[in-house]
This record gives sequence, C-alpha cells and structure tokens, in this order.
Amino acid sequence: MPLPARVRLVEVGPRDGLQNEPQPVPTAVKIELVHRLQAAGARDIEVTSFVSPHWVPQMADNAQVMAGMERPAGVRHAVLIPNLRGFERALPYRPDEVVVFGAASETFSQKNINCSVAQSIERFAPVVQAARAEGIAVRGAISCALGCPYEGAIDPAQVGEVAGRMKAIGVQHVGVADTIGVGTPRAVQRALEAALRHFDLDDVSGHFHDTYGQALANTYAALEMGIWQFDAAVAGLGGCPYAKGATGNVATEDLVYMLHGLGIDTGIDLDALVDAGLYISQCLGRPSQSRAGTAIARKRT
Amino acid sequence: MPLPARVRLVEVGPRDGLQNEPQPVPTAVKIELVHRLQAAGARDIEVTSFVSPHWVPQMADNAQVMAGMERPAGVRHAVLIPNLRGFERALPYRPDEVVVFGAASETFSQKNINCSVAQSIERFAPVVQAARAEGIAVRGAISCALGCPYEGAIDPAQVGEVAGRMKAIGVQHVGVADTIGVGTPRAVQRALEAALRHFDLDDVSGHFHDTYGQALANTYAALEMGIWQFDAAVAGLGGCPYAKGATGNVATEDLVYMLHGLGIDTGIDLDALVDAGLYISQCLGRPSQSRAGTAIARKRT
Repeated sequence: MPLPARVRLVEVGPRDGLQNEPQPVPTAVKIELVHRLQAAGARDIEVTSFVSPHWVPQMADNAQVMAGMERPAGVRHAVLIPNLRGFERALPYRPDEVVVFGAASETFSQKNINCSVAQSIERFAPVVQAARAEGIAVRGAISCALGCPYEGAIDPAQVGEVAGRMKAIGVQHVGVADTIGVGTPRAVQRALEAALRHFDLDDVSGHFHDTYGQALANTYAALEMGIWQFDAAVAGLGGCPYAKGATGNVATEDLVYMLHGLGIDTGIDLDALVDAGLYISQCLGRPSQSRAGTAIARKRT
Repeated sequence: MPLPARVRLVEVGPRDGLQNEPQPVPTAVKIELVHRLQAAGARDIEVTSFVSPHWVPQMADNAQVMAGMERPAGVRHAVLIPNLRGFERALPYRPDEVVVFGAASETFSQKNINCSVAQSIERFAPVVQAARAEGIAVRGAISCALGCPYEGAIDPAQVGEVAGRMKAIGVQHVGVADTIGVGTPRAVQRALEAALRHFDLDDVSGHFHDTYGQALANTYAALEMGIWQFDAAVAGLGGCPYAKGATGNVATEDLVYMLHGLGIDTGIDLDALVDAGLYISQCLGRPSQSRAGTAIARKRT
C-alpha cells in the first residue's frame, strides 16, 4: 500500500500540550501561539478546553482565547468539551469542532471520572446531539488506547468497544490516543484496526505521545495502514520528559520532518513551525522537546 | 514480510558515543560501563578506537580499556581502526572485530581525511588483509549514508559505490550509517537496498542517529526489509542534543523498548540497561538522552 500523499495534522499544543504544562501561561501567549501556528500553515488547531477551571486551571481562560484569536478562513478550531454545560459555554465562540473523550481502560475511567466507560460515553450523547444540531463536527478521543497507568497493556477489543459506543451516539471521527506513550508499532496497528471496525479510514486518526520515544515509529506504522490524520504538539508540549508524570505529545516538528522526508504534503512551513516552537519554549523557560526543532534551530546559529 | 524474530544489537556507546562527548571520561568509568552493558546482556560492544590520540584524545586510553575489561565468553568486542598502524596497536588485545570506515560523500571524505572516497577505502585493504589473516572479522561503516553536512542528501548510488568498494577489499559486513541523523524511513530503505546489492541480508546493519528524532521510525522501516542488526548507544551517548554540532546515537533503551514491544528477542535485560544508562549519564553530569530510559527510571521513584 503506498503511503498517503497528504496528511492532515491537528495541532494540539495549545490544548493538550499547555494543559499538561506545570506553569501557568498568559492568555496573550496562548493567542500568539495560535497565530504563529496559523502563520506556519496549521489548518486544524485544538485551541482550548471548556472544562471546569477547578479541575484544569490552565484552561480557565478558554473564552478569552476563543474570543481573542484571529480566525482566518480555512482554519478549523476545535475545543475539548467534558459535558453539556461545557458545550453551552463554548457555543457562543462557534468552535468548528468539539472533542469528547472516553478511556479504553475501565479502571482509568473509574479512578478519573468516577463512572464506567459505558456511562462516560452515554453522558456525551446530548453533547453530540447538540453539537450536530448546530452544525459543529464531533470528534471522539479514545484515551489510554495502548496502555493504562493502572491496567497496563490494553486489549484492542476495548478500543473497539469504545469506538463502537462513540459511533452509536453520533461521533463522526475517533482519535486513537496513546496517552501514556507506551505503544509500539504493531500494537498501534492493532488498536487502529479495532477503531476501523466502526469508522472509515477517513474518520480515524492517531494521537501519540513520545514518552518512550515511540511516536514516530508508531506514526510510520499507521501511515502504512493508510491512516492520514494525526495529532501533534509543537515543541512536544505536554510536560518536560524529566518531570515526574509528564508525557509530552509527539513534537509536530519531528512529525513534519518525517512526513516531508517521505514526500507527504502537510501544508506546513517547517521553518515557521520551528519558530513557533522556539517561541513557546522560551515562554515556558525550557528547551523545546522537539529533536528536529532543536537541530534545525542549531543549524541556524 | 514478517519482522525478524531476533535482533543483534551492537552497543556503540563506549566508542561512537563517548568519542563524541565533550568532557573526558576516566578509563575506569569506561571499563565499568562495558561491564554494566555486559551484565545487561549486551553481546556485541564497540569498545574503543585505535586512532591517534592527537585527533581523538577521548580514545587515548584504548589499550588500557582493552586490557582492563573483563571479556566473558560469548561477548564480541569490536574496535575502530583508521589504518594499519592502528591495527597493529590493537592486535595484542585481540579484538573480535575491527571496524573500518568510508564516507558516502566525496566532499566529506576530502574535507575530513583529505583524500577521495575510493582512496580512503583502498588504504584499508592491507588492514582487512591483516585482520582476516588473524581470524578477526571486519566490518565496514559507511558514514554520511543518508546525508552530508556539505553535500546535503546523498544519492543511494553513492552508498552502493562504497559498499562495492568495501566488498572488493574483503570487508565482510557493512553498516549503513546516518551519521548526522537526517534520514527518513523510505530514504533509509533505499540506502539499505543499495548496500544489499553487494552484501547479503545477514551482512548489512543499520546505524542511525536521532538528531531529528527519526531513528526508531527508520529502524522499523529497516526491520520491514528483514534487516536485523543495528548499532545503538546506551543513554543516546554521542553528545547532548542541545550542544552545537552534537548528534547522539539512537538510545539503546528506546530501541530495545520498541523491539520487545514488537515481540523481537534482543537478549537484553531492559531494566539493567536503563541502569547502565543512568550510570554513564550521572558520570557525564547530564540527563540521559533516552526517552524510554528516562520514563522507566521515573516510574521507579
């Protein structure tokens, strides 16, 4: 099977990335990051989360970010939504897409949101209904799809189970998320296959964390299956790998470097993306977690 | 094609790794590192280099390392050799293998060793002859096989050219080395294919640097071709990625993590390997460059 000719990247740095960074980030910096990503060619950006500021203080400025950023034609802005109340708070800002979520691990679901996987997805049904009635796309994130901090390795059948439940409530696209970065290429392929039993190839994406350095190998294995949509975070945002419990997303720069090397179109200007990564790393006061970003920046000096 | 059932890893940390670290490393630390690698199950170790201490002061204690380390049965020890004089200095220590080298880039060869690629390989002919007469295996490293700091991308035909010349002088095995870490999976496959026109599948290995974060994806692509021998350096030794000009080897821990996840036997005890990586990183006074090593160590605390 030839590799896809183009890849759609969803830049999740502003949301999944910054949400997991320990220090607070000013709203103006978040907006500037979104602008720089847009200038670098990002056409899909997960901007913020409408969760309770009690649980996720880092995203308390969600409304200000949505209201303050420029929204050029052709760029889709997604927001994470935990429940109907969150959706109602997000709606005035007209996100192009909302992201709902469920874990592929029963223990994780119980420990983190105090209900079963089935219940957690059922609770999203009114959100999906409301979003689609408003003409807003709905993506489902299947977290812990490769492994769980409590259960260890996850059976692909559990991924299929969540995908099926998401399909049943009207979710249009699912992302198979290796939240703790433990997956390796063939295991990732099996998890994606499980999702593909419920969704078309065009409606399944990969979301890999680079905790164990596996994210690009996993992406390459997914590309070989025809998967052509991936999440990534500029500068590998999502926590410094030397901090306890931190598990950064795959760096968009590293992913774009590989894709361009494979002759795959991303629409991204890698040099401008590297600049965006350097900008946010400087704001966070730590080196970029992107190896390609670091190597490219070094060559300039 | 199914993936190989087992992989032979050549641990190059003590040589290619430490040679490119800026600070001097005491001989006793090098020997302790070799011992810890052996205890972790490493069965192929590139220990040192018999180059002139004028050019590579980091390897000036080559004889002391060879004489001081334990050499358990079943472990093969390799040394890098620049010329016949180097071979003669190494011979009393009976390395199991000697490594000779040539660049796939004409400009790199001219600038670094002041002769053409063809001349540089021709000069190794007496070394190969002497080694084989002593019953010592000879491996050839094809450096800059994916890219060159001067020429940029390298045509796979140039890799084939070097492989053919190495074959002609009696080299038994070639390593395709992405010295500056710029390769991506399909380009790596083309470079390996060029070497495979002159050597059997059992006589070609991959040597990838992780400068742009591509090494594991490149390894996975090589495994899909049936390549089953790879070099790697514990803790990603070979220079901190934040230092100018440094391009660390792929971390053995990251590679072993992937291979074990793929169900491929390496003979390595990953936990003991992580300990060896922590040991040398502490000696160098900087964090390990291995993501898997860092993540595994963090989970212990």
